[in-house]
Amino acid sequence: MAEKFVSEKTIKFLVHDVFDVSQLVQYPYFSDHSREVFDMVLDTALKMGEDLYRPYFEEMDRLPVSLVNGRVKVHPHVRTIMKECGAGGWIGAEFPYETGGQQLPLTISLLSEFIFNAANYSAAVFASLTTGAAGLIESFGSHEMKEKYLPKMMSGEWQGTMALTEPQAGSSLSDVTTVAEPTDKGYFKLKGQKIFISAADHDGVDNIVHLLLAKIKGAPAGVKGISLFVVPRERFADEGGLEFNDVNSAGIYHKMGYRGSPIVQLGLGEENNCRGWLVGEPNRGLAYMFQMMNGARIGVGLGAAGIASAAYYASLQYTKERLQGRKLSQKDPSTPQIALIEHSDIKRMLLLQRAVVEGSLALLTQCAIYHDLEKVLEGDQSEKYNLLLELLTPVAKSYPSEMGILSTSAGIQCLGGYGYCEEFPLEQHYRDMRIHPIHEGTTGIQGMDLLGRKMTMKGGKAAQLYIEELQKTIQEAREIESLRKYAGDLESAAKILQKVTAHLTSEVAAKKGPDYFLADATVYLEFFGYICIAWQWLKIAVSAVKALESNPAEKDADFYKGKILTMQYHYGYELPKINGLAEILTNSEGITVDATENLFED
Amino acid sequence: MAEKFVSEKTIKFLVHDVFDVSQLVQYPYFSDHSREVFDMVLDTALKMGEDLYRPYFEEMDRLPVSLVNGRVKVHPHVRTIMKECGAGGWIGAEFPYETGGQQLPLTISLLSEFIFNAANYSAAVFASLTTGAAGLIESFGSHEMKEKYLPKMMSGEWQGTMALTEPQAGSSLSDVTTVAEPTDKGYFKLKGQKIFISAADHDGVDNIVHLLLAKIKGAPAGVKGISLFVVPRERFADEGGLEFNDVNSAGIYHKMGYRGSPIVQLGLGEENNCRGWLVGEPNRGLAYMFQMMNGARIGVGLGAAGIASAAYYASLQYTKERLQGRKLSQKDPSTPQIALIEHSDIKRMLLLQRAVVEGSLALLTQCAIYHDLEKVLEGDQSEKYNLLLELLTPVAKSYPSEMGILSTSAGIQCLGGYGYCEEFPLEQHYRDMRIHPIHEGTTGIQGMDLLGRKMTMKGGKAAQLYIEELQKTIQEAREIESLRKYAGDLESAAKILQKVTAHLTSEVAAKKGPDYFLADATVYLEFFGYICIAWQWLKIAVSAVKALESNPAEKDADFYKGKILTMQYHYGYELPKINGLAEILTNSEGITVDATENLFED
Repeated sequence: MAEKFVSEKTIKFLVHDVFDVSQLVQYPYFSDHSREVFDMVLDTALKMGEDLYRPYFEEMDRLPVSLVNGRVKVHPHVRTIMKECGAGGWIGAEFPYETGGQQLPLTISLLSEFIFNAANYSAAVFASLTTGAAGLIESFGSHEMKEKYLPKMMSGEWQGTMALTEPQAGSSLSDVTTVAEPTDKGYFKLKGQKIFISAADHDGVDNIVHLLLAKIKGAPAGVKGISLFVVPRERFADEGGLEFNDVNSAGIYHKMGYRGSPIVQLGLGEENNCRGWLVGEPNRGLAYMFQMMNGARIGVGLGAAGIASAAYYASLQYTKERLQGRKLSQKDPSTPQIALIEHSDIKRMLLLQRAVVEGSLALLTQCAIYHDLEKVLEGDQSEKYNLLLELLTPVAKSYPSEMGILSTSAGIQCLGGYGYCEEFPLEQHYRDMRIHPIHEGTTGIQGMDLLGRKMTMKGGKAAQLYIEELQKTIQEAREIESLRKYAGDLESAAKILQKVTAHLTSEVAAKKGPDYFLADATVYLEFFGYICIAWQWLKIAVSAVKALESNPAEKDADFYKGKILTMQYHYGYELPKINGLAEILTNSEGITVDATENLFED
Repeated sequence: MAEKFVSEKTIKFLVHDVFDVSQLVQYPYFSDHSREVFDMVLDTALKMGEDLYRPYFEEMDRLPVSLVNGRVKVHPHVRTIMKECGAGGWIGAEFPYETGGQQLPLTISLLSEFIFNAANYSAAVFASLTTGAAGLIESFGSHEMKEKYLPKMMSGEWQGTMALTEPQAGSSLSDVTTVAEPTDKGYFKLKGQKIFISAADHDGVDNIVHLLLAKIKGAPAGVKGISLFVVPRERFADEGGLEFNDVNSAGIYHKMGYRGSPIVQLGLGEENNCRGWLVGEPNRGLAYMFQMMNGARIGVGLGAAGIASAAYYASLQYTKERLQGRKLSQKDPSTPQIALIEHSDIKRMLLLQRAVVEGSLALLTQCAIYHDLEKVLEGDQSEKYNLLLELLTPVAKSYPSEMGILSTSAGIQCLGGYGYCEEFPLEQHYRDMRIHPIHEGTTGIQGMDLLGRKMTMKGGKAAQLYIEELQKTIQEAREIESLRKYAGDLESAAKILQKVTAHLTSEVAAKKGPDYFLADATVYLEFFGYICIAWQWLKIAVSAVKALESNPAEKDADFYKGKILTMQYHYGYELPKINGLAEILTNSEGITVDATENLFED
């Protein structure tokens, strides 16, 4: 039996039962698709996960990337992956037909991406980064740019990247200093350094296309002076063919995990010969980049959920096979040992993992649905889904990333000492996971985004829409006898959320200013996350109860009961944590604002 | 400046101010010592940490152990370390004079060990394991055994181990099957396998002495049939010298971290020529082994606290040096960037680390003091400290181990992307840390030990003594105006602890039996831990306030204020978590007991 890293049944349950993704085909943009097409796409993705990605999971970690004579070498299989992703139309599958896309709902391509991430996270980022970069060109690039770059990127021949970070500008993008000097030839001359750029050079493709932030000489200080450029590693030469564009690989990072994917340090314009082409208007680069960044943040959450999924199934399998100990009520040592999974503490750790994996995946799917609805609807309706997506993006990025640490750690713990050893995949999943709270905006940045920007934007409209979404689910659940209790729990939680939020936005922000208001934004994000995932679990439970009403076969019934069990776990073991967190958030004395550096010495 | 991994000032503050370790010299056993001797020992340990341990921290990870022709090779520096530890009297420093020890309080040798662990955890275990194994011989071995083994072990020429785990018996020791067959020659013939044995073979010493659990042929089933043996890798030959004792290194484990120390799989008696010597009486092996195991559990907590300490100081240094971003209230991007440590969210992550490191170290020191007092006092008084030590051992093992994951993770997060890279020590600390919730009894085992055994033993006497200890600290703090609030918080927490405990031991255990009673023992352990560490922090704060009353120099004042700040962090950000945990523990519906395996499939 092939090693399991995702549950096909759970994915299809989310698609068809919980979110009814087929509702999208009623809109003209998606009208060529159908439930059958969606299933077919997912089936293909599952097969690719098994055949193309998973077999290289361990090898890409053990033989990591290297820098040889100024060029980055990756596992030779990366070229195969990029080719297959290109040939199969996976890069930019959600783009419109006219730019070579398939107008697939993001929801379906996201779930496919989840499968690839679970199979082999390092291997999956090459194509998804290219999709994101191509998406920027597709949305904001000139007609000429699209013609030049999109076909090569979407065929998997060229890699796309997003190049933001600089040595002095990590989380603080307003301090970007890469300079773009205008010329009269339609391009800019770039000079600067970029660090921590994923897939920014490698031999698995023929060229790299950087979507890169820089400042046009004389631009305003801060983020208002940032522009977006296309900067290929090799540019089109006037005489045809490609020529080196003075984009130099200065180094690669030796990482704890996520080792199959190169993270590169770039030097631009060392020979004063690096050309970049402006995307859209000057000084609007950050706004453009946020399209890719929001996508990338969802992608990070998805990566974390994928890794946690693979870790879960590996630990599940082990706990079913490994015999150890007896029930606590069984005192006779001559009775046979039982499987690990029969111990309550092991079941608790399995349920923790499931609650994180499936709860996160549901939230990510929810975000994708919002994205798809935003696209096909208009006016207020479109704005509604845009606001919901904006609000939930930091949560969809951070909850899987932070809880993924605990989830993969629980996976290790299920295996005991073996979980700590390379003979099992758990330790790699644990190492791979740790990148997620860092890249594409740290958890701290996400917390400030959620509380400082999203909860208050448009006079709190996004927050209000979100509460309405929760109420809708609460109402549905309330009509089901067995879920009434949980509907009540979520309603109470929503009230606590509103109370805490009001305290912070009205009391603290108004009286003490932004430094105090956002001091505990990370704690707020965690608090918000438990409630948000409780909402998703209640949704799942509603669908599971409904499915059970139609008397399914025993195995299917077990499947639905398993969902309800995991919902109960989240409500019993995770959601109550909001009480402590609410207390932290409302009683905060601002000690982290007031504490001065001299108190941190010994 | 040498890279900092521990705070000398904090260690000495704990020794002299918080715990007044010099009180011990009033007892005859410790009367040769003095405050000056304790300082001298610690100063030497600090120097050894810097010179002997830390320089090999990275190298021992990057060039890990190997198995070559059936022998385990470790870093050549291990031999130097063992020699120096032997020559300096560090192995068995707390043993009585007559067995070559120095009658040092455990408190002082534990704090020295903390320094070594922080400097280089993998390197520090060789000597501390030898101390533990030698301690078993010292306590329970025959005179002949002591003469044969102790000098070689205490000189660092021979390595000691504890060999419990077998392929079919990890957490379940009652399933040990290694057989010991009596002979008429004073020894037993052993046959069996041991796995996951730390330092069970290596070329940094001349011989290995296993303190090993096995069952004498015909012994009762379960733990009541386990005996303890001394099984050297090379035994004394009748004709003098040493000869191979048929203890074979069958494999080593390739671990995620803790890579400088070999974990070995042993085959005993493959040629039917493995001899073991019974320690103490037959079938009492587990009781004896618990002396070493309790010590080893404290040692694991200490290792975790040490690693977290090194991670904390590495992240502290970085956040002081690295400039990034501006205060949230500073909107002007042309102002200079500020150091990371000026951001509230960074300070929160630093305080989290400090609260874990110093709170854990205080608890471990508390345990050591109890051990020392148990040793020098008699009757009820001795029993009192024994009970307190027994009660707190699972907490002292698990709190640093589990919180250490979050603490080192916060350390990584302070560095952003650099924290994930090998260029900084954080990622290694994070990898090294993950062994601690596993070895010497998993966190699950510790939870069951605390709730199922320790809280109820002797009719709940240990629990009652513990509450009295808390009350003592609460009273002291209540007399200090600035600490009154926190004294009240701890008092409330103690009440919640008693309430939750009563619910579990009376309600659940009585009505539903042991499976339900202990189903959430791990959650209980976490809950207990926050309160226990709050107690330690209040103790620290009392000492800090008193020290501040004597108008110290500004730098010293900052030091004491830093302790109070960290106490406030624990009370503001960690202790409130008990509210959610109490709810989980009292409202548990037993879903982890009732859930059947068929619900875990997809």
